[in-house]
Amino acid sequence: MPLPDHVRIVEVGPRDGLQNEAGTIPTATKLDLIHRLADAGLTTVEATAFVSPKWVPQMADHKEVLRGIQRRSGVNYPVLTPNMKGFEAAAEAGAEEVAVFGAASETFSRKNINCSIDESLERFRPVVDAAATRGIRVRGYVSCVLGCPYEGAIDPQAVGRVAEALHTMGCYEISLGDTIGTGTPLAAQRMIDAVAERVPMERLAAHFHDTYGQALVNLYAVLERGVATVDTAVAGLGGCPYARGASGNVATEDVVYMLDGMAIHTGVDLHALAAVGRWISGELGREPASRVARALAAKG
Amino acid sequence: MPLPDHVRIVEVGPRDGLQNEAGTIPTATKLDLIHRLADAGLTTVEATAFVSPKWVPQMADHKEVLRGIQRRSGVNYPVLTPNMKGFEAAAEAGAEEVAVFGAASETFSRKNINCSIDESLERFRPVVDAAATRGIRVRGYVSCVLGCPYEGAIDPQAVGRVAEALHTMGCYEISLGDTIGTGTPLAAQRMIDAVAERVPMERLAAHFHDTYGQALVNLYAVLERGVATVDTAVAGLGGCPYARGASGNVATEDVVYMLDGMAIHTGVDLHALAAVGRWISGELGREPASRVARALAAKG
Repeated sequence: MPLPDHVRIVEVGPRDGLQNEAGTIPTATKLDLIHRLADAGLTTVEATAFVSPKWVPQMADHKEVLRGIQRRSGVNYPVLTPNMKGFEAAAEAGAEEVAVFGAASETFSRKNINCSIDESLERFRPVVDAAATRGIRVRGYVSCVLGCPYEGAIDPQAVGRVAEALHTMGCYEISLGDTIGTGTPLAAQRMIDAVAERVPMERLAAHFHDTYGQALVNLYAVLERGVATVDTAVAGLGGCPYARGASGNVATEDVVYMLDGMAIHTGVDLHALAAVGRWISGELGREPASRVARALAAKG
Repeated sequence: MPLPDHVRIVEVGPRDGLQNEAGTIPTATKLDLIHRLADAGLTTVEATAFVSPKWVPQMADHKEVLRGIQRRSGVNYPVLTPNMKGFEAAAEAGAEEVAVFGAASETFSRKNINCSIDESLERFRPVVDAAATRGIRVRGYVSCVLGCPYEGAIDPQAVGRVAEALHTMGCYEISLGDTIGTGTPLAAQRMIDAVAERVPMERLAAHFHDTYGQALVNLYAVLERGVATVDTAVAGLGGCPYARGASGNVATEDVVYMLDGMAIHTGVDLHALAAVGRWISGELGREPASRVARALAAKG
Protein backbone atom coordinates (compact mmCIF):
# COMPACT_ATOMS: atom_id res chain seq x y z
CA MET A 1 0.00 0.00 0.00
CA PRO A 2 1.42 3.42 -0.91
CA LEU A 3 1.77 6.07 1.77
CA PRO A 4 -1.02 8.65 1.88
CA ASP A 5 -0.66 11.86 -0.19
CA HIS A 6 -2.10 13.95 2.61
CA VAL A 7 -2.00 13.57 6.37
CA ARG A 8 -4.32 15.47 8.68
CA ILE A 9 -2.59 16.52 11.88
CA VAL A 10 -4.64 16.87 15.04
CA GLU A 11 -2.67 19.19 17.28
CA VAL A 12 -3.29 18.22 20.90
CA GLY A 13 -0.70 20.44 22.57
CA PRO A 14 -3.08 22.92 24.21
CA ARG A 15 -5.01 20.05 25.85
CA ASP A 16 -3.07 16.78 26.12
CA GLY A 17 0.17 18.72 26.12
CA LEU A 18 -0.63 21.20 28.86
CA GLN A 19 -3.04 19.29 31.10
CA ASN A 20 -0.37 17.86 33.39
CA GLU A 21 1.69 21.03 33.73
CA ALA A 22 2.14 21.81 37.40
CA GLY A 23 2.11 25.60 37.34
CA THR A 24 -1.05 27.38 36.28
CA ILE A 25 -0.73 28.64 32.73
CA PRO A 26 -2.56 31.92 32.08
CA THR A 27 -5.66 31.62 29.92
CA ALA A 28 -4.21 34.28 27.62
CA THR A 29 -1.15 32.10 27.01
CA LYS A 30 -3.34 29.12 26.14
CA LEU A 31 -5.33 31.23 23.70
CA ASP A 32 -2.16 32.64 22.22
CA LEU A 33 -0.90 29.09 21.70
CA ILE A 34 -4.12 28.01 20.00
CA HIS A 35 -4.07 31.04 17.70
CA ARG A 36 -0.41 30.63 16.80
CA LEU A 37 -0.94 26.96 15.97
CA ALA A 38 -3.81 27.79 13.63
CA ASP A 39 -1.66 30.52 12.07
CA ALA A 40 1.04 27.89 11.38
CA GLY A 41 -1.46 25.96 9.28
CA LEU A 42 -2.94 23.42 11.70
CA THR A 43 -6.59 22.79 10.91
CA THR A 44 -7.49 20.89 14.08
CA VAL A 45 -6.36 22.26 17.43
CA GLU A 46 -7.70 20.48 20.50
CA ALA A 47 -8.37 23.40 22.78
CA THR A 48 -9.20 22.26 26.30
CA ALA A 49 -11.03 19.68 28.42
CA PHE A 50 -14.38 20.09 30.14
CA VAL A 51 -13.40 17.95 33.08
CA SER A 52 -13.64 18.63 36.78
CA PRO A 53 -10.99 21.09 37.99
CA LYS A 54 -10.68 18.74 40.96
CA TRP A 55 -9.08 16.17 38.64
CA VAL A 56 -7.39 18.42 36.10
CA PRO A 57 -6.85 21.86 37.63
CA GLN A 58 -4.92 23.09 34.60
CA MET A 59 -8.10 22.88 32.50
CA ALA A 60 -10.29 24.77 34.99
CA ASP A 61 -10.51 27.73 32.60
CA HIS A 62 -12.07 25.61 29.83
CA LYS A 63 -15.03 27.95 29.29
CA GLU A 64 -12.82 31.01 29.05
CA VAL A 65 -10.50 29.23 26.64
CA LEU A 66 -13.22 27.93 24.34
CA ARG A 67 -15.11 31.23 24.37
CA GLY A 68 -11.94 33.24 23.88
CA ILE A 69 -10.82 31.58 20.66
CA GLN A 70 -10.79 33.84 17.63
CA ARG A 71 -11.99 31.16 15.26
CA ARG A 72 -10.38 30.84 11.87
CA SER A 73 -12.42 29.55 8.98
CA GLY A 74 -11.55 25.95 8.25
CA VAL A 75 -10.08 25.23 11.67
CA ASN A 76 -11.67 22.90 14.23
CA TYR A 77 -11.24 23.37 17.97
CA PRO A 78 -12.41 20.14 19.63
CA VAL A 79 -12.65 19.81 23.41
CA LEU A 80 -12.75 16.80 25.71
CA THR A 81 -16.11 16.03 27.34
CA PRO A 82 -16.08 12.83 29.40
CA ASN A 83 -19.71 13.06 30.56
CA MET A 84 -22.99 14.93 30.13
CA LYS A 85 -22.03 17.66 32.57
CA GLY A 86 -18.91 18.40 30.59
CA PHE A 87 -20.76 18.14 27.32
CA GLU A 88 -23.50 20.59 28.35
CA ALA A 89 -20.93 23.13 29.48
CA ALA A 90 -18.92 22.70 26.29
CA ALA A 91 -21.98 23.02 24.08
CA GLU A 92 -23.03 26.14 25.93
CA ALA A 93 -19.55 27.61 25.42
CA GLY A 94 -19.82 27.03 21.66
CA ALA A 95 -18.12 23.68 21.06
CA GLU A 96 -18.53 22.40 17.50
CA GLU A 97 -16.63 19.19 18.18
CA VAL A 98 -16.15 17.18 21.36
CA ALA A 99 -14.28 14.03 22.32
CA VAL A 100 -14.90 11.15 24.69
CA PHE A 101 -12.17 8.83 25.93
CA GLY A 102 -12.22 5.15 26.74
CA ALA A 103 -9.52 2.56 27.30
CA ALA A 104 -8.61 -0.76 25.76
CA SER A 105 -7.42 -2.01 29.14
CA GLU A 106 -9.97 -2.97 31.78
CA THR A 107 -7.61 -2.20 34.66
CA PHE A 108 -6.59 1.16 33.22
CA SER A 109 -10.23 2.07 32.71
CA ARG A 110 -11.05 1.29 36.33
CA LYS A 111 -8.02 3.14 37.68
CA ASN A 112 -8.23 6.13 35.32
CA ILE A 113 -11.95 6.77 34.96
CA ASN A 114 -13.30 4.63 37.79
CA CYS A 115 -15.50 2.32 35.78
CA SER A 116 -15.31 -0.72 33.53
CA ILE A 117 -14.88 -0.35 29.79
CA ASP A 118 -18.55 -1.25 29.24
CA GLU A 119 -19.68 1.25 31.85
CA SER A 120 -17.57 3.96 30.24
CA LEU A 121 -19.18 3.26 26.88
CA GLU A 122 -22.65 3.58 28.45
CA ARG A 123 -21.57 6.87 29.96
CA PHE A 124 -20.56 8.19 26.54
CA ARG A 125 -23.79 7.20 24.81
CA PRO A 126 -25.91 10.15 26.03
CA VAL A 127 -23.05 12.51 25.14
CA VAL A 128 -22.88 11.15 21.59
CA ASP A 129 -26.68 11.23 21.27
CA ALA A 130 -26.94 14.79 22.58
CA ALA A 131 -24.14 15.87 20.28
CA ALA A 132 -25.90 14.35 17.27
CA THR A 133 -29.05 16.26 18.15
CA ARG A 134 -27.12 19.51 18.21
CA GLY A 135 -24.98 18.81 15.15
CA ILE A 136 -21.80 18.56 17.18
CA ARG A 137 -19.21 16.07 15.97
CA VAL A 138 -17.78 13.54 18.42
CA ARG A 139 -14.33 12.00 18.32
CA GLY A 140 -13.53 8.88 20.34
CA TYR A 141 -10.19 8.25 22.05
CA VAL A 142 -9.02 4.79 23.01
CA SER A 143 -6.05 4.67 25.38
CA CYS A 144 -3.55 1.87 26.09
CA VAL A 145 -3.82 0.45 22.57
CA LEU A 146 -0.24 -0.86 22.57
CA GLY A 147 0.28 -1.47 26.25
CA CYS A 148 -1.06 -0.80 29.72
CA PRO A 149 0.91 0.16 32.82
CA TYR A 150 -1.04 -2.47 34.80
CA GLU A 151 -1.75 -5.23 32.29
CA GLY A 152 1.27 -5.01 29.96
CA ALA A 153 0.53 -6.09 26.40
CA ILE A 154 -3.00 -5.48 25.11
CA ASP A 155 -4.85 -7.79 22.73
CA PRO A 156 -5.43 -5.95 19.42
CA GLN A 157 -8.94 -7.43 19.37
CA ALA A 158 -9.70 -5.66 22.66
CA VAL A 159 -8.73 -2.39 20.99
CA GLY A 160 -10.90 -3.30 18.02
CA ARG A 161 -13.93 -3.97 20.21
CA VAL A 162 -13.75 -0.59 21.97
CA ALA A 163 -13.03 1.26 18.72
CA GLU A 164 -15.95 -0.45 17.02
CA ALA A 165 -18.31 0.35 19.90
CA LEU A 166 -17.36 4.04 19.77
CA HIS A 167 -17.69 4.13 15.99
CA THR A 168 -21.06 2.37 16.01
CA MET A 169 -22.24 4.76 18.70
CA GLY A 170 -21.56 7.68 16.38
CA CYS A 171 -17.97 8.84 16.80
CA TYR A 172 -16.78 10.09 13.41
CA GLU A 173 -13.15 9.25 14.16
CA ILE A 174 -11.34 6.94 16.58
CA SER A 175 -7.98 8.06 17.91
CA LEU A 176 -5.85 5.13 19.03
CA GLY A 177 -3.52 6.09 21.85
CA ASP A 178 -0.23 4.45 22.81
CA THR A 179 -0.59 6.11 26.19
CA ILE A 180 2.61 4.77 27.74
CA GLY A 181 4.63 4.78 24.53
CA THR A 182 5.79 1.17 24.75
CA GLY A 183 4.74 0.14 21.24
CA THR A 184 7.04 -0.84 18.38
CA PRO A 185 6.34 -0.78 14.62
CA LEU A 186 5.09 -4.30 13.96
CA ALA A 187 2.87 -4.26 17.05
CA ALA A 188 1.45 -0.93 15.87
CA GLN A 189 0.71 -2.42 12.45
CA ARG A 190 -0.92 -5.53 13.95
CA MET A 191 -3.10 -3.33 16.15
CA ILE A 192 -4.16 -1.11 13.26
CA ASP A 193 -4.89 -4.12 11.08
CA ALA A 194 -7.11 -5.62 13.79
CA VAL A 195 -9.02 -2.37 14.33
CA ALA A 196 -9.41 -1.75 10.59
CA GLU A 197 -11.34 -5.01 10.33
CA ARG A 198 -14.04 -3.35 12.43
CA VAL A 199 -13.77 0.39 11.67
CA PRO A 200 -12.89 1.84 8.24
CA MET A 201 -9.22 2.86 8.02
CA GLU A 202 -10.14 6.45 7.07
CA ARG A 203 -11.89 6.77 10.46
CA LEU A 204 -8.74 5.91 12.41
CA ALA A 205 -6.14 8.24 13.88
CA ALA A 206 -2.84 7.37 15.55
CA HIS A 207 -1.98 9.05 18.86
CA PHE A 208 1.45 7.92 19.97
CA HIS A 209 3.53 9.05 22.91
CA ASP A 210 7.30 9.15 22.70
CA THR A 211 8.27 7.74 26.10
CA TYR A 212 10.54 5.09 24.55
CA GLY A 213 11.46 7.15 21.48
CA GLN A 214 9.29 4.97 19.23
CA ALA A 215 6.47 7.35 18.32
CA LEU A 216 7.75 8.54 14.95
CA VAL A 217 8.68 5.09 13.68
CA ASN A 218 5.34 3.71 14.88
CA LEU A 219 3.53 6.50 13.02
CA TYR A 220 5.47 5.68 9.86
CA ALA A 221 4.55 2.02 10.29
CA VAL A 222 0.82 2.78 10.49
CA LEU A 223 0.98 5.27 7.60
CA GLU A 224 2.20 2.26 5.62
CA ARG A 225 -1.07 0.57 6.55
CA GLY A 226 -3.22 3.49 5.40
CA VAL A 227 -3.69 5.65 8.48
CA ALA A 228 -3.78 9.30 7.38
CA THR A 229 -4.63 11.17 10.59
CA VAL A 230 -2.15 11.61 13.41
CA ASP A 231 -2.31 13.34 16.78
CA THR A 232 0.76 15.35 17.76
CA ALA A 233 1.74 18.09 20.21
CA VAL A 234 3.90 21.07 19.34
CA ALA A 235 7.32 20.87 21.05
CA GLY A 236 6.43 17.38 22.25
CA LEU A 237 4.41 18.86 25.11
CA GLY A 238 2.70 16.52 27.50
CA GLY A 239 3.03 13.95 30.14
CA CYS A 240 6.39 14.06 31.84
CA PRO A 241 5.75 11.26 34.31
CA TYR A 242 9.42 10.47 33.68
CA ALA A 243 12.33 12.70 32.79
CA ARG A 244 11.66 16.25 31.71
CA GLY A 245 10.97 16.62 28.01
CA ALA A 246 11.34 12.91 27.39
CA SER A 247 7.92 11.43 27.49
CA GLY A 248 5.26 13.62 25.99
CA ASN A 249 3.33 13.34 22.79
CA VAL A 250 5.28 12.95 19.61
CA ALA A 251 6.40 16.44 18.57
CA THR A 252 4.40 18.00 15.75
CA GLU A 253 7.61 19.46 14.32
CA ASP A 254 9.28 16.05 14.03
CA VAL A 255 6.21 14.56 12.32
CA VAL A 256 5.84 17.46 9.89
CA TYR A 257 9.56 17.29 9.08
CA MET A 258 9.24 13.59 8.25
CA LEU A 259 6.09 14.10 6.18
CA ASP A 260 7.59 17.10 4.33
CA GLY A 261 10.61 14.94 3.52
CA MET A 262 8.31 12.33 1.99
CA ALA A 263 6.30 14.97 0.05
CA ILE A 264 3.18 14.15 2.09
CA HIS A 265 1.03 17.26 2.36
CA THR A 266 -0.03 18.57 5.78
CA GLY A 267 -0.67 22.26 5.14
CA VAL A 268 1.58 23.11 8.08
CA ASP A 269 4.47 25.59 7.72
CA LEU A 270 7.35 23.83 9.52
CA HIS A 271 9.35 26.95 10.31
CA ALA A 272 6.31 28.81 11.65
CA LEU A 273 5.41 25.75 13.69
CA ALA A 274 8.93 25.45 15.12
CA ALA A 275 8.74 29.09 16.17
CA VAL A 276 5.50 28.35 18.04
CA GLY A 277 7.20 25.42 19.74
CA ARG A 278 10.13 27.52 20.84
CA TRP A 279 7.80 30.23 22.10
CA ILE A 280 5.58 27.95 24.22
CA SER A 281 8.63 26.09 25.53
CA GLY A 282 10.05 29.42 26.61
CA GLU A 283 6.78 30.24 28.36
CA LEU A 284 7.08 26.93 30.23
CA GLY A 285 10.76 27.53 31.01
CA ARG A 286 12.24 24.61 29.08
CA GLU A 287 13.74 23.49 25.80
CA PRO A 288 11.42 22.02 23.17
CA ALA A 289 11.43 18.21 23.24
CA SER A 290 11.31 18.38 19.43
CA ARG A 291 14.68 17.59 17.89
CA VAL A 292 13.66 19.39 14.71
CA ALA A 293 12.91 22.53 16.72
CA ARG A 294 16.34 22.39 18.35
CA ALA A 295 18.18 21.67 15.11
CA LEU A 296 16.42 24.50 13.26
CA ALA A 297 17.11 26.89 16.15
CA ALA A 298 20.79 25.96 16.10
CA LYS A 299 20.96 26.68 12.36
CA GLY A 300 19.54 30.15 13.06
CA MET B 1 10.54 -8.06 1.75
CA PRO B 2 10.33 -9.33 5.33
CA LEU B 3 12.38 -7.65 8.03
CA PRO B 4 15.65 -9.43 8.93
CA ASP B 5 15.59 -12.04 11.73
CA HIS B 6 18.90 -10.80 13.09
CA VAL B 7 20.49 -7.36 13.11
CA ARG B 8 24.16 -6.82 13.83
CA ILE B 9 24.77 -3.70 15.85
CA VAL B 10 28.05 -1.86 15.42
CA GLU B 11 28.51 0.16 18.60
CA VAL B 12 30.37 3.37 17.74
CA GLY B 13 30.01 5.16 21.08
CA PRO B 14 33.65 4.92 22.22
CA ARG B 15 34.85 6.45 18.92
CA ASP B 16 32.19 8.42 17.04
CA GLY B 17 30.40 9.10 20.30
CA LEU B 18 33.33 10.42 22.29
CA GLN B 19 35.57 12.00 19.66
CA ASN B 20 34.04 15.47 19.90
CA GLU B 21 33.82 15.63 23.68
CA ALA B 22 35.55 18.77 24.89
CA GLY B 23 37.01 17.55 28.17
CA THR B 24 39.69 14.86 28.10
CA ILE B 25 38.18 11.53 29.04
CA PRO B 26 40.58 9.25 30.96
CA THR B 27 41.84 6.25 29.01
CA ALA B 28 40.63 4.01 31.83
CA THR B 29 37.08 5.34 31.38
CA LYS B 30 37.22 4.63 27.65
CA LEU B 31 38.41 1.08 28.32
CA ASP B 32 35.75 0.61 30.96
CA LEU B 33 33.12 1.72 28.43
CA ILE B 34 34.41 -0.69 25.80
CA HIS B 35 34.43 -3.59 28.26
CA ARG B 36 30.96 -2.81 29.61
CA LEU B 37 29.55 -2.65 26.08
CA ALA B 38 30.98 -6.05 25.23
CA ASP B 39 29.60 -7.39 28.51
CA ALA B 40 26.14 -6.14 27.47
CA GLY B 41 26.30 -8.34 24.39
CA LEU B 42 27.64 -6.06 21.68
CA THR B 43 29.89 -8.00 19.29
CA THR B 44 31.38 -5.01 17.48
CA VAL B 45 32.66 -2.07 19.50
CA GLU B 46 34.50 0.62 17.55
CA ALA B 47 37.28 1.45 19.95
CA THR B 48 39.20 4.54 18.85
CA ALA B 49 40.66 6.44 15.89
CA PHE B 50 44.27 6.51 14.76
CA VAL B 51 44.10 10.09 13.61
CA SER B 52 46.35 13.01 14.39
CA PRO B 53 45.83 14.37 17.93
CA LYS B 54 46.11 17.78 16.28
CA TRP B 55 42.73 17.15 14.64
CA VAL B 56 41.04 14.93 17.21
CA PRO B 57 42.72 15.44 20.58
CA GLN B 58 40.21 13.17 22.34
CA MET B 59 41.59 10.17 20.44
CA ALA B 60 45.26 10.92 21.22
CA ASP B 61 45.42 7.86 23.49
CA HIS B 62 44.47 5.50 20.66
CA LYS B 63 47.43 3.16 21.20
CA GLU B 64 46.78 2.87 24.92
CA VAL B 65 43.09 2.22 24.31
CA LEU B 66 43.60 -0.45 21.68
CA ARG B 67 46.37 -2.15 23.62
CA GLY B 68 44.43 -1.95 26.87
CA ILE B 69 41.35 -3.80 25.71
CA GLN B 70 40.74 -7.12 27.43
CA ARG B 71 39.48 -8.84 24.32
CA ARG B 72 36.44 -11.06 24.55
CA SER B 73 36.13 -13.98 22.19
CA GLY B 74 33.69 -13.20 19.40
CA VAL B 75 33.92 -9.41 19.80
CA ASN B 76 35.51 -7.11 17.21
CA TYR B 77 37.16 -3.83 18.14
CA PRO B 78 37.65 -1.88 14.90
CA VAL B 79 39.53 1.41 14.81
CA LEU B 80 39.56 4.28 12.32
CA THR B 81 42.68 4.61 10.17
CA PRO B 82 42.40 7.36 7.57
CA ASN B 83 45.88 6.90 6.10
CA MET B 84 48.98 4.70 6.09
CA LYS B 85 50.48 6.37 9.12
CA GLY B 86 47.36 5.64 11.14
CA PHE B 87 47.12 2.15 9.73
CA GLU B 88 50.71 1.25 10.62
CA ALA B 89 50.25 2.47 14.16
CA ALA B 90 46.96 0.60 14.51
CA ALA B 91 48.40 -2.61 13.12
CA GLU B 92 51.34 -2.35 15.48
CA ALA B 93 48.95 -1.88 18.39
CA GLY B 94 47.12 -5.08 17.47
CA ALA B 95 44.18 -3.94 15.33
CA GLU B 96 42.26 -6.80 13.73
CA GLU B 97 39.87 -4.51 11.89
CA VAL B 98 40.26 -0.95 10.64
CA ALA B 99 38.04 1.56 8.88
CA VAL B 100 38.54 4.26 6.26
CA PHE B 101 36.11 7.10 5.68
CA GLY B 102 35.10 8.88 2.53
CA ALA B 103 32.26 11.21 1.64
CA ALA B 104 29.50 11.21 -0.95
CA SER B 105 29.73 15.01 -1.17
CA GLU B 106 32.63 16.58 -3.03
CA THR B 107 32.47 19.78 -0.98
CA PHE B 108 32.30 17.92 2.33
CA SER B 109 35.25 15.77 1.31
CA ARG B 110 37.35 18.84 0.53
CA LYS B 111 36.36 20.63 3.72
CA ASN B 112 36.54 17.61 6.02
CA ILE B 113 39.53 15.63 4.74
CA ASN B 114 41.13 18.23 2.47
CA CYS B 115 40.95 16.32 -0.79
CA SER B 116 38.54 15.35 -3.54
CA ILE B 117 36.53 12.14 -3.30
CA ASP B 118 38.78 10.51 -5.91
CA GLU B 119 41.91 11.60 -4.09
CA SER B 120 40.53 10.20 -0.82
CA LEU B 121 39.89 6.85 -2.50
CA GLU B 122 43.46 6.77 -3.77
CA ARG B 123 44.65 7.51 -0.25
CA PHE B 124 42.69 4.53 1.10
CA ARG B 125 44.01 2.07 -1.47
CA PRO B 126 47.41 1.42 0.17
CA VAL B 127 45.66 1.05 3.54
CA VAL B 128 43.29 -1.56 2.15
CA ASP B 129 46.11 -3.35 0.34
CA ALA B 130 48.36 -3.38 3.42
CA ALA B 131 45.45 -4.62 5.54
CA ALA B 132 44.79 -7.45 3.11
CA THR B 133 48.42 -8.51 3.31
CA ARG B 134 48.21 -8.67 7.09
CA GLY B 135 44.78 -10.30 7.26
CA ILE B 136 43.18 -7.21 8.78
CA ARG B 137 39.58 -6.49 7.75
CA VAL B 138 38.67 -3.04 6.44
CA ARG B 139 35.33 -1.31 6.76
CA GLY B 140 34.48 1.70 4.61
CA TYR B 141 32.45 4.66 5.82
CA VAL B 142 30.65 7.01 3.46
CA SER B 143 29.44 10.26 4.99
CA CYS B 144 26.73 12.69 3.83
CA VAL B 145 24.68 9.95 2.17
CA LEU B 146 21.36 11.75 2.76
CA GLY B 147 22.50 15.34 2.80
CA CYS B 148 25.50 17.62 3.01
CA PRO B 149 25.84 20.80 5.06
CA TYR B 150 27.31 22.56 1.99
CA GLU B 151 25.57 20.93 -0.97
CA GLY B 152 22.17 20.00 0.51
CA ALA B 153 20.57 16.95 -1.11
CA ILE B 154 22.96 14.26 -2.37
CA ASP B 155 22.34 12.16 -5.49
CA PRO B 156 21.91 8.50 -4.43
CA GLN B 157 24.06 7.55 -7.44
CA ALA B 158 26.94 9.58 -6.00
CA VAL B 159 26.64 7.52 -2.82
CA GLY B 160 26.53 4.36 -4.90
CA ARG B 161 29.71 5.28 -6.79
CA VAL B 162 31.74 5.86 -3.62
CA ALA B 163 30.33 2.77 -1.93
CA GLU B 164 31.13 0.66 -4.98
CA ALA B 165 34.68 2.01 -5.18
CA LEU B 166 35.32 1.14 -1.53
CA HIS B 167 33.77 -2.30 -1.92
CA THR B 168 35.72 -3.06 -5.08
CA MET B 169 38.90 -1.91 -3.36
CA GLY B 170 38.34 -4.55 -0.68
CA CYS B 171 36.21 -3.11 2.12
CA TYR B 172 34.12 -5.97 3.51
CA GLU B 173 31.32 -3.65 4.60
CA ILE B 174 30.19 -0.15 3.66
CA SER B 175 28.62 1.99 6.37
CA LEU B 176 26.35 4.68 4.95
CA GLY B 177 26.27 7.75 7.15
CA ASP B 178 23.53 10.36 7.40
CA THR B 179 26.11 12.64 8.95
CA ILE B 180 23.85 15.64 9.47
CA GLY B 181 20.70 13.66 10.20
CA THR B 182 18.49 15.38 7.64
CA GLY B 183 17.20 12.23 5.93
CA THR B 184 13.63 10.93 5.96
CA PRO B 185 12.38 7.38 5.35
CA LEU B 186 11.66 7.37 1.64
CA ALA B 187 14.92 9.18 0.85
CA ALA B 188 16.75 6.60 2.96
CA GLN B 189 15.09 3.78 1.02
CA ARG B 190 15.89 5.39 -2.34
CA MET B 191 19.52 5.80 -1.31
CA ILE B 192 19.81 2.18 -0.14
CA ASP B 193 18.15 0.91 -3.31
CA ALA B 194 20.62 2.86 -5.45
CA VAL B 195 23.63 1.61 -3.50
CA ALA B 196 22.36 -1.99 -3.47
CA GLU B 197 22.48 -1.98 -7.26
CA ARG B 198 26.26 -1.70 -6.95
CA VAL B 199 27.12 -3.38 -3.64
CA PRO B 200 25.36 -6.47 -2.23
CA MET B 201 22.78 -5.55 0.42
CA GLU B 202 24.43 -7.81 3.01
CA ARG B 203 27.55 -5.64 2.73
CA LEU B 204 25.72 -2.44 3.67
CA ALA B 205 25.29 -0.85 7.08
CA ALA B 206 23.18 2.16 8.08
CA HIS B 207 24.79 4.85 10.22
CA PHE B 208 22.20 7.50 11.00
CA HIS B 209 22.43 10.53 13.23
CA ASP B 210 19.42 11.80 15.13
CA THR B 211 19.76 15.55 14.68
CA TYR B 212 16.21 15.88 13.34
CA GLY B 213 14.80 12.95 15.32
CA GLN B 214 14.54 10.80 12.18
CA ALA B 215 17.25 8.20 12.81
CA LEU B 216 15.08 5.42 14.18
CA VAL B 217 12.39 5.70 11.53
CA ASN B 218 15.03 5.86 8.81
CA LEU B 219 16.64 2.70 10.21
CA TYR B 220 13.28 0.94 10.16
CA ALA B 221 12.76 2.06 6.56
CA VAL B 222 16.08 0.56 5.43
CA LEU B 223 15.51 -2.64 7.43
CA GLU B 224 12.43 -2.98 5.24
CA ARG B 225 14.79 -2.93 2.27
CA GLY B 226 17.04 -5.65 3.66
CA VAL B 227 19.75 -3.81 5.57
CA ALA B 228 20.71 -5.90 8.60
CA THR B 229 23.67 -4.01 10.10
CA VAL B 230 23.27 -0.71 11.93
CA ASP B 231 25.71 1.63 13.63
CA THR B 232 24.56 3.09 16.95
CA ALA B 233 26.04 4.76 20.02
CA VAL B 234 25.10 3.97 23.58
CA ALA B 235 23.18 6.84 25.22
CA GLY B 236 23.08 8.59 21.85
CA LEU B 237 26.63 9.84 22.39
CA GLY B 238 28.21 11.96 19.73
CA GLY B 239 28.26 15.15 17.86
CA CYS B 240 26.53 17.89 19.78
CA PRO B 241 27.12 20.65 17.26
CA TYR B 242 23.62 21.78 18.29
CA ALA B 243 21.80 21.46 21.57
CA ARG B 244 23.21 19.17 24.22
CA GLY B 245 22.11 15.60 23.90
CA ALA B 246 20.03 16.30 20.84
CA SER B 247 22.13 15.50 17.86
CA GLY B 248 24.37 12.51 18.33
CA ASN B 249 24.20 9.06 16.88
CA VAL B 250 20.98 7.17 17.22
CA ALA B 251 20.97 5.66 20.71
CA THR B 252 21.78 1.95 20.86
CA GLU B 253 19.14 1.52 23.57
CA ASP B 254 16.36 2.94 21.39
CA VAL B 255 17.35 0.71 18.46
CA VAL B 256 17.60 -2.44 20.60
CA TYR B 257 14.21 -1.64 22.19
CA MET B 258 12.62 -1.37 18.74
CA LEU B 259 14.26 -4.55 17.49
CA ASP B 260 13.37 -6.48 20.67
CA GLY B 261 9.77 -5.36 20.19
CA MET B 262 9.81 -6.80 16.68
CA ALA B 263 11.47 -10.06 17.83
CA ILE B 264 14.58 -9.26 15.78
CA HIS B 265 17.61 -10.79 17.47
CA THR B 266 20.61 -8.62 18.37
CA GLY B 267 22.23 -10.54 21.22
CA VAL B 268 22.24 -7.36 23.30
CA ASP B 269 20.77 -7.29 26.83
CA LEU B 270 18.71 -4.09 26.86
CA HIS B 271 18.74 -3.55 30.61
CA ALA B 272 22.49 -4.14 30.87
CA LEU B 273 23.00 -1.78 27.92
CA ALA B 274 20.83 0.93 29.48
CA ALA B 275 22.89 0.68 32.65
CA VAL B 276 26.05 1.26 30.60
CA GLY B 277 24.40 4.28 29.00
CA ARG B 278 23.46 5.76 32.35
CA TRP B 279 26.97 5.13 33.69
CA ILE B 280 28.84 6.80 30.79
CA SER B 281 26.36 9.68 30.77
CA GLY B 282 27.08 10.16 34.46
CA GLU B 283 30.81 10.16 33.74
CA LEU B 284 30.20 12.89 31.16
CA GLY B 285 27.91 14.82 33.50
CA ARG B 286 24.68 14.60 31.54
CA GLU B 287 21.48 12.68 31.02
CA PRO B 288 21.44 9.93 28.39
CA ALA B 289 20.00 11.13 25.09
CA SER B 290 18.30 7.73 24.86
CA ARG B 291 14.60 7.93 25.68
CA VAL B 292 14.55 4.23 26.49
CA ALA B 293 17.35 4.74 29.02
CA ARG B 294 15.41 7.54 30.68
CA ALA B 295 12.12 5.65 30.69
CA LEU B 296 13.69 2.52 32.16
CA ALA B 297 15.48 4.58 34.80
CA ALA B 298 12.21 6.23 35.78
CA LYS B 299 10.57 2.83 36.19
CA GLY B 300 13.40 1.85 38.53
